[in-house]
Amino acid sequence: MQRRSFLKQAGVGAAAAGAALGAPALAQDMPSLNWRMASGFPQKLDLRFGAGELFCKYVSEATGGKFGIRHYPEGELAPASGLVEAVAARKADCGHGSSLALYGANPAFLFDAAAPFGLDAAQMDAWMYEGDGLRLTRELFKPLKIVNFPLGNTGPQMGGWFRKEIRRESDLKDLKIRAGGLAADIWKRLGAAPVQTPDDELAQAAEKEGLQAVAGAGPYDDGLRGLNNVAKYYYAPAWWAPGEQMSLYINEEAWSKLPKNYQSVVESAARAAHAATTTRYAARNPQALAGLSAGGALVRAYPRSVLDAAFDAAQAAYQEMAAKQPGFKAIHDNYMGFRDAAMPWLRLTQGAYEQYLGVALSGRG
Amino acid sequence: MQRRSFLKQAGVGAAAAGAALGAPALAQDMPSLNWRMASGFPQKLDLRFGAGELFCKYVSEATGGKFGIRHYPEGELAPASGLVEAVAARKADCGHGSSLALYGANPAFLFDAAAPFGLDAAQMDAWMYEGDGLRLTRELFKPLKIVNFPLGNTGPQMGGWFRKEIRRESDLKDLKIRAGGLAADIWKRLGAAPVQTPDDELAQAAEKEGLQAVAGAGPYDDGLRGLNNVAKYYYAPAWWAPGEQMSLYINEEAWSKLPKNYQSVVESAARAAHAATTTRYAARNPQALAGLSAGGALVRAYPRSVLDAAFDAAQAAYQEMAAKQPGFKAIHDNYMGFRDAAMPWLRLTQGAYEQYLGVALSGRG
Repeated sequence: MQRRSFLKQAGVGAAAAGAALGAPALAQDMPSLNWRMASGFPQKLDLRFGAGELFCKYVSEATGGKFGIRHYPEGELAPASGLVEAVAARKADCGHGSSLALYGANPAFLFDAAAPFGLDAAQMDAWMYEGDGLRLTRELFKPLKIVNFPLGNTGPQMGGWFRKEIRRESDLKDLKIRAGGLAADIWKRLGAAPVQTPDDELAQAAEKEGLQAVAGAGPYDDGLRGLNNVAKYYYAPAWWAPGEQMSLYINEEAWSKLPKNYQSVVESAARAAHAATTTRYAARNPQALAGLSAGGALVRAYPRSVLDAAFDAAQAAYQEMAAKQPGFKAIHDNYMGFRDAAMPWLRLTQGAYEQYLGVALSGRG
Repeated sequence: MQRRSFLKQAGVGAAAAGAALGAPALAQDMPSLNWRMASGFPQKLDLRFGAGELFCKYVSEATGGKFGIRHYPEGELAPASGLVEAVAARKADCGHGSSLALYGANPAFLFDAAAPFGLDAAQMDAWMYEGDGLRLTRELFKPLKIVNFPLGNTGPQMGGWFRKEIRRESDLKDLKIRAGGLAADIWKRLGAAPVQTPDDELAQAAEKEGLQAVAGAGPYDDGLRGLNNVAKYYYAPAWWAPGEQMSLYINEEAWSKLPKNYQSVVESAARAAHAATTTRYAARNPQALAGLSAGGALVRAYPRSVLDAAFDAAQAAYQEMAAKQPGFKAIHDNYMGFRDAAMPWLRLTQGAYEQYLGVALSGRG
């Protein structure tokens, strides 16, 4: 105990000296802090859960272990469906999940995750960090007493598993497909019969409920979920979610009480973990697709006519929602304006390059 | 002086107590450090130079100002052409530049920056961080006593400025084009007459030397360099550099002497600044292209036959270099193997999505 109070005094001395030198003081700078973080993902989905792991690791490393965040898998501190509420009530200091789960509370939250015919991962980052995205999504979260940060993006995704081939729009008629959020609305407009089933044990639930199709994510996550056991036709691209951003939710009071340098550490760690997760998906998805294909999945591209029908249905769904909710319209218009400004550029460079190289590498077939 | 030695003693005490508690000690953790960083870029290229600025800022913020890195524009500590040598000799503790500048020393350095018909920004990150890229490029830098990190990627780029339209391969015959590195070799195989001019005052130099074309970067950087004053036809995509990675070069001894938590701070700050820079380009390039176009640039896509000729010429150039240098072959094969595994996936998802959306948004024209 004597040594402790000696150290404390020394800390005060250091603080005074630090102030005199124009540098922040050590003892004030680096308080010991322990936070709890609730994940909206099970450990099995290791890249999603792993985004939270990376974030905690970076924060700990940057503070020499002084700021520790303990990370709990989905269900331990809160169920995925109650994640944001648990953080707001500070049952956890922060959480990590997908804002697609908040669609029921406010459809505008989809712009914090994935929007039909929306932004890919790189443009989503551009909108969030360089456009108005972070500001606008933070306004959405303010009433929930949450401060949000991007924490991982899946990058390009696949367009779902189907038991039969989809050659034309009429093949979607009455098709029992697992889908949620605005995507479910669009599937309905396309004539399908969307069903919402919980995320866990998806493959088994699909079997039980007689699903004919499942709108999953990318090949890496879909493989972990066993979706290849539900159906064999595997379509691309995921027009309803060309990339899904995950989010870090921090309790507003916990955030505001952090020392400024810890806030910087959190921001920089979240950004680094976000980028690292996106990169992990970019590395694993190609291999995962090849593995699923070798295991019997039949990879197909959506016919142009189905994409056209889906595009029109999405416009109608967006317009109806925007007419009902001015808040939705405001963020929708900002997000889609960003997309529309970026698309000619992306089509001309990245889109054309990837199409060309794909053709060239497969022998110009 | 008395206070200083008192603090030092207190630091030792804290170290002992910290060790007893299993936590690192403050005074040992957070030494005051001042580094100098030489940029290979002028301040005028604000996103390139800014990548280094961001890195220094993140390091400072995460250490409460204890680890300061002062950042010098190109030419102040070292010229861009002598950047890596200056870091190796510790005239600067670290540097930031493009490894394309090292092509003359060892052509394999192009795989640390941009390779003809190579990886886009997301796949480059995947190769560097999740594949063998960081390990293999670090082997290249080892004899130079440098530890390298990715620090910014331009993302998709444009395919250069031309005074006349390029309708077929024969239009390239004897064309005086500013290009460097392996790209110059490929242009030569296509019948053109590549010229190497220094990077600064490029627009003026182009005028003086009677260039008919300039292979630049993306629209944001090209606009800052005034390349739109050289020629009006602006081609896409940049098949010789689908994304250019910039690099942080750290003196090996300086790196090895950093405390472990400062190493973590550097890694995390470099990763965050890398991602932030890539995102800045993603946000600014679409606007910059629109601005150049409004200012008179005539945007064109390379004809398929020219891309085919360039692809074949690139294969020949790679093969010749690989036959000459086993070191080049090893990293080439690893890099291209990564590309070949990723392309079917990218073409199916991102490439198809961007092509489709581009068409849909322009009225399915």
